[in-house]
Amino acid sequence: MSGLFVTLEGGDGAGKSTQAEMLSGWLSERGHEVVRTREPGGTTLGVELRKLLLHGGDVSPRAEALLYAADRAQHIATVVRPALERDAVVVQDRYIDSSLAYQGAGRVLSAEEVRGISTWAVEGLWPDLTVLLDIDPEEGVTRRASRGGSDDRLEAEAIEFHRAVREGFLALAKQESDRFLVLDATAPADEIHAHILAAVSPLLSR
Amino acid sequence: MSGLFVTLEGGDGAGKSTQAEMLSGWLSERGHEVVRTREPGGTTLGVELRKLLLHGGDVSPRAEALLYAADRAQHIATVVRPALERDAVVVQDRYIDSSLAYQGAGRVLSAEEVRGISTWAVEGLWPDLTVLLDIDPEEGVTRRASRGGSDDRLEAEAIEFHRAVREGFLALAKQESDRFLVLDATAPADEIHAHILAAVSPLLSR
Repeated sequence: MSGLFVTLEGGDGAGKSTQAEMLSGWLSERGHEVVRTREPGGTTLGVELRKLLLHGGDVSPRAEALLYAADRAQHIATVVRPALERDAVVVQDRYIDSSLAYQGAGRVLSAEEVRGISTWAVEGLWPDLTVLLDIDPEEGVTRRASRGGSDDRLEAEAIEFHRAVREGFLALAKQESDRFLVLDATAPADEIHAHILAAVSPLLSR
Repeated sequence: MSGLFVTLEGGDGAGKSTQAEMLSGWLSERGHEVVRTREPGGTTLGVELRKLLLHGGDVSPRAEALLYAADRAQHIATVVRPALERDAVVVQDRYIDSSLAYQGAGRVLSAEEVRGISTWAVEGLWPDLTVLLDIDPEEGVTRRASRGGSDDRLEAEAIEFHRAVREGFLALAKQESDRFLVLDATAPADEIHAHILAAVSPLLSR
């Protein structure tokens, strides 16, 4: 595969969508095919799973992890791999790191088990670059509320949970510093965008 | 846990529902609490997943295996374990052996991988007894059609697939002969019922 696979990670309100759009626009203007996508919910099956996951009532921890993995398996097999095979750039909101940070750090399951299932789901496909938009959870919640975003299940949980998620993301970035670019999400959007371009550009000319 | 966990396995048309009902009736008459259930679809989440799995269009092999495992995780955590903990007898249509026979033997995934994911999903809970109603696939299809059953996705596939599933079930029964009771599904229902009671009775008096 010769395309480029870029993921954006970070808590709610960190600005992933804004940066994904800015990056996608920049890439399109330079003639690259861009596939802008997300998990959960990047496929027809995924849209249904996303509804079940975010608004479907009590789901046991293992069932929840397996549903995220199923969404991911379908998304990678039917959207991401075909795009990479035709040399497209995939710009994706959330991937395995989100499962690890939310499930592994914040919940009752072991991060190693969740990693094993996700890795199996995607047949070992990892991003070329993962941009972590790091933000204090209280700041993220404030930003999201100011945009009029509706509460989903994760947002209704306590701020302590979001702190554990943030620590999870930062620990992952430390473990795999070659893959990760960690940026301060409270910086101006243009400045963040410039840092992302500085990391993406050399990967395009490989 | 001190309840009893009995599963029924076999191809479509083998008579699993009939035998599950006869067994449940016999147990209820003797004062046992009976939980009659099924996979996929034994929970609210599972009903939604069952719809996606049987009528939801193309699902990649790994996504399919993970959805079955998610259904199973939710079902075991919220229905089966609580029932066994209060000493009930669980009589269930299909369990991990179905995933192994359908996914492992008939499809593209390794049986060991599918077993590993299912075992993780249920935290290692295996049945006390598994009744395999063995039937020639062509006979099963004929019987099912004569009952006016509608076609689902598995039934629309070729008879060769169902043959591979049958061989998969028989191989599992051979590997774990202590757990399995293999019966000829073409025998009269009363006769099959008697064989099942002969296996269940000693387990009730443990």
